[in-house]
Amino acid sequence: MSSPGGAVGPPSPAVSGFRRLWQDLHDIGRSADTGGYNRFAWTREDHDLREWFTGQCEQRGLDVTTDRMGNQWAWWGDPDAAVAAGDPGVVIGSHLDSVPDGGAFDGPLGVVGALAAIDHLRAIGFTPTRPIGAVNFVDEEGARFGVACAGSRVITGVLGGDRARGLTDRDGTSMAEAMRAAGRDPAHVGRDDETLARIGTFVELHVEQGRALVDLGHAVGVGSDIWPHGRWRVDLPGEANHAGTTRLEDREDAMLGLAAMIIAARRAATDHGCVATVGKVNIVPGGVNAIASGATGWLDARGADADAVRRVVADVGAVVADFDGLVTQESWTPTTMFDPALAQQMAARLGGVPVIGTGAGHDAGILANDGIRTAMLFVRNPTGVSHSPDEWASADDCVAGVLALADVVSDLAGADAARGGERDEQAEGPAA
Amino acid sequence: MSSPGGAVGPPSPAVSGFRRLWQDLHDIGRSADTGGYNRFAWTREDHDLREWFTGQCEQRGLDVTTDRMGNQWAWWGDPDAAVAAGDPGVVIGSHLDSVPDGGAFDGPLGVVGALAAIDHLRAIGFTPTRPIGAVNFVDEEGARFGVACAGSRVITGVLGGDRARGLTDRDGTSMAEAMRAAGRDPAHVGRDDETLARIGTFVELHVEQGRALVDLGHAVGVGSDIWPHGRWRVDLPGEANHAGTTRLEDREDAMLGLAAMIIAARRAATDHGCVATVGKVNIVPGGVNAIASGATGWLDARGADADAVRRVVADVGAVVADFDGLVTQESWTPTTMFDPALAQQMAARLGGVPVIGTGAGHDAGILANDGIRTAMLFVRNPTGVSHSPDEWASADDCVAGVLALADVVSDLAGADAARGGERDEQAEGPAA
Repeated sequence: MSSPGGAVGPPSPAVSGFRRLWQDLHDIGRSADTGGYNRFAWTREDHDLREWFTGQCEQRGLDVTTDRMGNQWAWWGDPDAAVAAGDPGVVIGSHLDSVPDGGAFDGPLGVVGALAAIDHLRAIGFTPTRPIGAVNFVDEEGARFGVACAGSRVITGVLGGDRARGLTDRDGTSMAEAMRAAGRDPAHVGRDDETLARIGTFVELHVEQGRALVDLGHAVGVGSDIWPHGRWRVDLPGEANHAGTTRLEDREDAMLGLAAMIIAARRAATDHGCVATVGKVNIVPGGVNAIASGATGWLDARGADADAVRRVVADVGAVVADFDGLVTQESWTPTTMFDPALAQQMAARLGGVPVIGTGAGHDAGILANDGIRTAMLFVRNPTGVSHSPDEWASADDCVAGVLALADVVSDLAGADAARGGERDEQAEGPAA
Repeated sequence: MSSPGGAVGPPSPAVSGFRRLWQDLHDIGRSADTGGYNRFAWTREDHDLREWFTGQCEQRGLDVTTDRMGNQWAWWGDPDAAVAAGDPGVVIGSHLDSVPDGGAFDGPLGVVGALAAIDHLRAIGFTPTRPIGAVNFVDEEGARFGVACAGSRVITGVLGGDRARGLTDRDGTSMAEAMRAAGRDPAHVGRDDETLARIGTFVELHVEQGRALVDLGHAVGVGSDIWPHGRWRVDLPGEANHAGTTRLEDREDAMLGLAAMIIAARRAATDHGCVATVGKVNIVPGGVNAIASGATGWLDARGADADAVRRVVADVGAVVADFDGLVTQESWTPTTMFDPALAQQMAARLGGVPVIGTGAGHDAGILANDGIRTAMLFVRNPTGVSHSPDEWASADDCVAGVLALADVVSDLAGADAARGGERDEQAEGPAA
């Protein structure tokens, strides 16, 4: 299910270029059992993906650099000359890592799409007036160390270097140790102003993780905002005891509170027009014949309205309070607005495609919150399924996304690019 | 909390002997954080416990042998001569392994108690007319490989050798590999008729896992039966998807069925006068931001009445059917009766102590189901807590249990022991 299909007729250069690049990635980190991908930061698979990215960029004569966090940047043109001239470049790209047993498109579509868009621009003889960059962000999914968008959070300083280095994976390996094992020096991990200054505009192409474009009948759409979202840990106490000999009335079973939490999360999300998910739990001691002395469930809640999301968490908190449950906020990201003028400009340029919001976090959101002029392009996902081996988009739609990205870049990096004062205004905009 | 306390006055030889033996075990596999014990089959801790048992038996001049499964037997007298004479010996003992973060008493009280009872019998000049054995069963809790009473199940053939060898722990290590790593040859694992033939009568001393003796005001009681009990795996399907972008109405979230199962188990147990526990779950893929594509919960259900237990499982099955859940029986043990005449004989000998049932499985139950004349002695547990660091019994009550065990053994292995035809009758009794 990981190959875009459905294109008919003779392939255009963009189609064949995209397909060839896409095929390169097919086997890296792919589970033979499920067809899903396991591509986690600073692993063998991640190394192979990074080597592939470097090789493809070098084949294209792009200058590859790595920032303080290990994000990879490849430049067509001189980004520092543009900074010196007060007119920094246009960056496109996404990430190559995955969630556990994830899909082929979430991330790679934007990286492969960036390379294919550059190929297309060159094929049509486009000459940029400002530099164009392609980026591969590291550890966007946070699958290994638990913090999503770690690559962009670190270089914008939202995630501090000490905290990043100290994050541990399930085996107890710290991010610093993982980086060292991957041949990188973690000493300089931290905010990277030099890298950020080079980004005049950032555009991330991404598979849609929902069905808005299907319902609207468009292959491509422009992102307006990212919903406010957060993560809460709910700890439920219990008392360890024997499952066979302890009377029901003598039990303090942490599982009952966990069950109530799961049901309350769904009910509260329905009541307040949000989404809420309990997808990870931890049970102590976790034996079949042992009453749980503790249970932890993680609540992921998001919605278009921040107050509504807060009400979901409050409702869940009220239910688990009856079980002496404790709710701890692990993260909270308010509404992230992409540059509204840029979104309108892109939607118009692309012939009036829809402008849609999303419930998923992205590196683009982190950059937008740092004041960078940022936009997203979404490619239609027929089923809406994401973070799953069944995630899919047709080749026609993927190529439509690549051509849209190339078109937008030619607008933003071309001779007649309308830049205006958008960037400076946005720099005063909302921050995380 | 793992030292028996509360004894006052000058210690008797039985008290000081028991305390000395008990203290030997205090540190083995003990968590400094919780005070609980982690003593799993074929680990370093298990090895140390087995070495300790061998050493103590050899100090007492007992002949130590190991059966085909690795259970340890120590004999005072010649068990095979007794078999040849048609009057096999009296065996006492229990196990030294623990559940995860378990208590100090469940198991060790019966093994330490067996050695202390032999010391007491020798101190009072008792001369056995038939051999007395002390046993340390391996892997009673099934904490590592998932099958409780693995040691007795294998030698009685209830658990076949191939199946036992192929059981795996959470790291994927098979029992055969674990045995080899512990220096044992798993090739001969299987039913062991030679060992079983030596057991004329088996008496297991155990801490009570409930509060019957507290309520009855006795330090020691005799076991009548083990409740019917079973274990069921409940698999709930879902569809992996993104936690932020998938509309509630488009979700197939396996967690909702799991929550319903947990609540249904408690309600059904209440309705039918049983106990039911969900203490272990597995979530796939288990990410905070991923809707669960699968959830498995294990149901442990027990009760005095087998039909009532079956009704609990049926009720849970009806609830999870609404979520397309699948219920698979992993084990089922019908009511296990200990020898009623022997129980009455022991209760009378001990001055009219209570005869009580239990919801917990024991190696004694496995031997009883193989037709061996079997009994249990329980020591009062003031809180009823078990399978927990808080499991506890007073030193006075432990010593009372040891003296009761010694008294029963002197009756069963003495010159005037009333044996009758109990064993042969019981051999036709209920089997698992």
